[in-house]
Amino acid sequence: MKVSVQWEGKRRFAARGESNHPVVMDAKPDVGGEDQGPRPMELLLMGLGGCTGIDIVMILEKMRLMVEEFRMEIEGVRREEYPQKFTEIHVKYILKGANLTPDKVERAIRLSEDKYCSASASLNARIRTSYELNGVVYEMGERVEVDDDPLQ
Amino acid sequence: MKVSVQWEGKRRFAARGESNHPVVMDAKPDVGGEDQGPRPMELLLMGLGGCTGIDIVMILEKMRLMVEEFRMEIEGVRREEYPQKFTEIHVKYILKGANLTPDKVERAIRLSEDKYCSASASLNARIRTSYELNGVVYEMGERVEVDDDPLQ
Repeated sequence: MKVSVQWEGKRRFAARGESNHPVVMDAKPDVGGEDQGPRPMELLLMGLGGCTGIDIVMILEKMRLMVEEFRMEIEGVRREEYPQKFTEIHVKYILKGANLTPDKVERAIRLSEDKYCSASASLNARIRTSYELNGVVYEMGERVEVDDDPLQ
Repeated sequence: MKVSVQWEGKRRFAARGESNHPVVMDAKPDVGGEDQGPRPMELLLMGLGGCTGIDIVMILEKMRLMVEEFRMEIEGVRREEYPQKFTEIHVKYILKGANLTPDKVERAIRLSEDKYCSASASLNARIRTSYELNGVVYEMGERVEVDDDPLQ
């Protein structure tokens, strides 16, 4: 996978991958930027969300479950010293759907986290997950082997 | 740092961070997407490029060097099996500037890679770097301690 990232003056960069969609990044004014695009570090969290989000949608689809609404709130905790890498990332999945159940949602999250999500596996932060289903917040249960994989 | 990632149907997700700039992601049609945005994994490479790119520009500025053109070509090699994480990422810096010299460019790259770049430090892939300066390709020399840091 290849991307090209072009400097456009000050702290602004325009990136384009093989999919050919442009993404502009910029820094905030206090480090010389003009805030014309997201911060580069935000893109890491966004990519993580898109990656695990696509997994979840595909797995729940294979389980023949109907997702009505779905979003993720992702928080990355960074080191104070340089490099200010993510040390911990909390991914909260928020779903609505009449026939979604906690065990199925949790199974989908586990499969993404443990098996499919390339972004999650590419980051070295500790990743914590939780979810909210139809307005009820759940902590992830004890980690168990997930052996029935609907994508197989 | 927080981002919110909203499902918009099929494989499409719209992300927004605290900087408040939206980024749409989508998958390719063969996995059910409609190719309306970059792939999530492309965002990881883009974020890496923006992060180290901003470092390089700031460091060369502090050295009072004039950058005329600057782009990066970034290639991520992924595992074949799931999760298809990046195992190796090659960042090639391509710069033009009349008063840029290989030792100064190399020092800026080292400082970003070893000290400042939060994205590089957040990824677990092995990162290789090379650069092209005013049309001449250089391999990075032997790793040495960089003790004079113009950002300090």
